[in-house]
Amino acid sequence: MRILIIGGGAAGGTAAQFARKTDRKANITIIDAEPYGQYSRCGLPYALRGDTTDERLVEFGPEWFERNGVEALYRYRVKSVDFSEKTVKIEGKDDIEYDRLVIATGARPWKPPIKGIENDGVFFLRTLDDLKGIREWIGDRKKVVIVGAGLIGLESAESFVRLGMDVAIVEFLSYPLPTMVDEDIGMEVEKILEKNGVKGYYSHEVTEVRGNPVSSVIIRNREDGSEIELEADIVVVSTGNSPNTEMFPDIEKGRRGHIRVNGRSETSVKDVFAAGDCTEYLDFVTGKYVPMGMGTMAVRQGMAAGTNAVGGSLEIQPFIGTRTTELFGMEIAGVGATAHVLKENDIDFVTGRFRGRDLPDYMDGREISVRVLASGEGRILGAQIIGRDASWRISMFAEAIIKKDTVRNLSLLETPYAPPIAPTVDPTSVACTIASMRLRRRK
Amino acid sequence: MRILIIGGGAAGGTAAQFARKTDRKANITIIDAEPYGQYSRCGLPYALRGDTTDERLVEFGPEWFERNGVEALYRYRVKSVDFSEKTVKIEGKDDIEYDRLVIATGARPWKPPIKGIENDGVFFLRTLDDLKGIREWIGDRKKVVIVGAGLIGLESAESFVRLGMDVAIVEFLSYPLPTMVDEDIGMEVEKILEKNGVKGYYSHEVTEVRGNPVSSVIIRNREDGSEIELEADIVVVSTGNSPNTEMFPDIEKGRRGHIRVNGRSETSVKDVFAAGDCTEYLDFVTGKYVPMGMGTMAVRQGMAAGTNAVGGSLEIQPFIGTRTTELFGMEIAGVGATAHVLKENDIDFVTGRFRGRDLPDYMDGREISVRVLASGEGRILGAQIIGRDASWRISMFAEAIIKKDTVRNLSLLETPYAPPIAPTVDPTSVACTIASMRLRRRK
Repeated sequence: MRILIIGGGAAGGTAAQFARKTDRKANITIIDAEPYGQYSRCGLPYALRGDTTDERLVEFGPEWFERNGVEALYRYRVKSVDFSEKTVKIEGKDDIEYDRLVIATGARPWKPPIKGIENDGVFFLRTLDDLKGIREWIGDRKKVVIVGAGLIGLESAESFVRLGMDVAIVEFLSYPLPTMVDEDIGMEVEKILEKNGVKGYYSHEVTEVRGNPVSSVIIRNREDGSEIELEADIVVVSTGNSPNTEMFPDIEKGRRGHIRVNGRSETSVKDVFAAGDCTEYLDFVTGKYVPMGMGTMAVRQGMAAGTNAVGGSLEIQPFIGTRTTELFGMEIAGVGATAHVLKENDIDFVTGRFRGRDLPDYMDGREISVRVLASGEGRILGAQIIGRDASWRISMFAEAIIKKDTVRNLSLLETPYAPPIAPTVDPTSVACTIASMRLRRRK
Repeated sequence: MRILIIGGGAAGGTAAQFARKTDRKANITIIDAEPYGQYSRCGLPYALRGDTTDERLVEFGPEWFERNGVEALYRYRVKSVDFSEKTVKIEGKDDIEYDRLVIATGARPWKPPIKGIENDGVFFLRTLDDLKGIREWIGDRKKVVIVGAGLIGLESAESFVRLGMDVAIVEFLSYPLPTMVDEDIGMEVEKILEKNGVKGYYSHEVTEVRGNPVSSVIIRNREDGSEIELEADIVVVSTGNSPNTEMFPDIEKGRRGHIRVNGRSETSVKDVFAAGDCTEYLDFVTGKYVPMGMGTMAVRQGMAAGTNAVGGSLEIQPFIGTRTTELFGMEIAGVGATAHVLKENDIDFVTGRFRGRDLPDYMDGREISVRVLASGEGRILGAQIIGRDASWRISMFAEAIIKKDTVRNLSLLETPYAPPIAPTVDPTSVACTIASMRLRRRK
């Protein structure tokens, strides 16, 4: 059995590991355009700020794969695949035949149509080479403009602040983390950024990068059309990604080119699996296929692809979108659909919102905000939290969502209670109670 | 409608609050043996160490109840109740009639049959008066022996360490927190205590308190019968509680005298509800009625008792036993049944155990140990964790237990992932995978 995996990132690397675990004898080959082995893209902002190193980001290096009998061809690019002949054409190398193929080609940064975006000093942060380029460029430079206030944009913003730079962030939508949280939680994120010296321009778009090397960017206020110029000697663009799937025309894809897979990571083509950022997958809450672009899913899909490719059996759960980050010491986490997504999908819902403290009143707790979204029948559809332990509080909602539990039930769950940990009735329980009461008043 | 509540602790106070919330006009009276109003017993060790004050522990003082139209009779003790006449006899006061009665009399420390236990310098830590007594006694005293390594015992141990005292702890069973965690996790707790200067004597019992005021205790090794003498100028006994239910002979009770209630906090007697430490309630995992002695449950049962007493409707979920604490900066949490309890109940189970790090390898994570227990069909029956964010990781298991989810499903759940928060595949997921693999090998 010959398994060929295109792409050696989290999805492809994990697929190789699970293929090997499941079948000790399978002939496994990875083709990777980069030379580093499997490394963490999510870790790049943390290496930038010095919380870790480039070397440590490599979770499974070339020697790991060699030691485990996985052939890895680095710095090779796939030109095309003939699914009927089960043959892959590679730039500068003989064709390779396969019995089972795993496509894990990932995505590349989407390049917004901005004048001057090719100028020197404009970077993306997607690869180790990007990181090395940024680090080299910084030198004595002090003024960074980040385009896009998603996870990578904000995590990088904190890194640049920690490096002593002046940081401005420009976001097309009206608040930070718009795909992860709703506006009220987003406004709290905005305050944290502001308090820590990150200048935010929301509802703004960059229209031009000036100077080569870059000296400033022009941004336009999307509400009133006014323009201002921000000084910049480095620009980092993080406005989303495009899947690397052009070389596979004969496979079912979504609107934006992502390869559609099921819970076994199977594609529309026999013996061809796909995993990670190049795929779209079933969203549990909306019932639609969506691109995800998340390490959590890349790993889980890789597990399924690798296991199933060698004849094992693993089916993962639909996507629920558990997301988290820490910004300037504050955790922000979410799971399921935002209000925006629910409206877009014409799904009726109520909101339970509570802002309280994370410890009993008699202890010195910190502020925490919880937002829970429930269907007309009370089923939990989403939750967002900002505050201490937001991430693992969200894990409780993640399990509740996948088990189709209701806000009423969750409001009564025995949550962990101890004076230095949480109150007897946690803010998460209160938010669920509020949503539950709103539902009752509707009837 | 006249509601009479006996006991003004977490259960009784919460019952009064929810009765008032549900019925603005109900005539509500609390009879309380203490004078302070509703205060947190769980907070006592934290007031002892100075993380909070006695005053702040009072969550709802007498003035709160007065302001909300709840009559509170402090420093009164109930002698007996005539359920057929719906009349309560009170020491030093006229009888009171009721339409609905809520029994929330709590529990008192169980006094082990130790010679000298009545001597000066021997304390319990159950009430604010106990705390004041201990504080006064300490003065320049330096040597404390704690009897019982449950939650209150260990939390007090940390408090005494922080006060600069020499602390020894004597536990009848072979490791600390024996009702909350299994031995392997308990051994890790033991190490933390030891590292922080708490001398532990496990599988030991106190046979005698010497001196009046106390000067030492004699402890006996339960394995070899040998005895040693520990110097002590203060002894704190925390070996469990007995329910205050002797004055209610005509009501269904469990083996140890706890009043049996259902999910609506109803007792065997019409119009009589009970809540909190004086009750026993259905354990979700074993299907048996058990005493709980937990603030979390006192509050939830109080909510049900108060709501239902005035004609509202609230039914809480069976008991799952979510427990947590923090000891010397380390969180320890558990939920569901321990291996010990499962064996006692002849319930077949497998264990998934994993010790790893709480962050991706490339970040500087800390050690975390996870233990999960699953039935022969894979249903999650219990979980225990020691490590950072143990408590809220346990909330995910709590929700999984109540929804009867399996280790296989939970092993695939999208857990929160970000480099400073958790790895893509969390130690909790790995522990579930291990349990799941063990189950598969069984077949």
